[in-house]
Amino acid sequence: MDNREILAKFGRRVREIRKERNLSQEELSFKADLHRTYIGMIERAEKNITLINIDKIAKALNVDLKELFDE
Amino acid sequence: MDNREILAKFGRRVREIRKERNLSQEELSFKADLHRTYIGMIERAEKNITLINIDKIAKALNVDLKELFDE
Repeated sequence: MDNREILAKFGRRVREIRKERNLSQEELSFKADLHRTYIGMIERAEKNITLINIDKIAKALNVDLKELFDE
Repeated sequence: MDNREILAKFGRRVREIRKERNLSQEELSFKADLHRTYIGMIERAEKNITLINIDKIAKALNVDLKELFDE
């Protein structure tokens, strides 16, 4: 798996859980205290997210951080 | 848990697995293609690591990325 593939995988997983929760990108960004456009960029694997922001997204989605790395 | 705590938890886990593998920071940095001082900073939670570098460390330690978030 090349370096960028991990970002794509992560982005897909965030989008999947966000939709399960019936949250818009805007609602998730508000809960996570991140910018709405940032959530879009993460879901599209356009940004190399940091651990602190991964943690914020996990908390906002109310999942264990590890679950963001489930296949 | 405050924001920085996730970095501390991650750093402790990296150090723990690195020692289980009998690797020095230098050896790990070489395998992960990261700078030796960077590995030290990660283990001491002095840097907010990015997902691409988390992935590099997981591969260098030969663990599933999720295992870096085990308690």
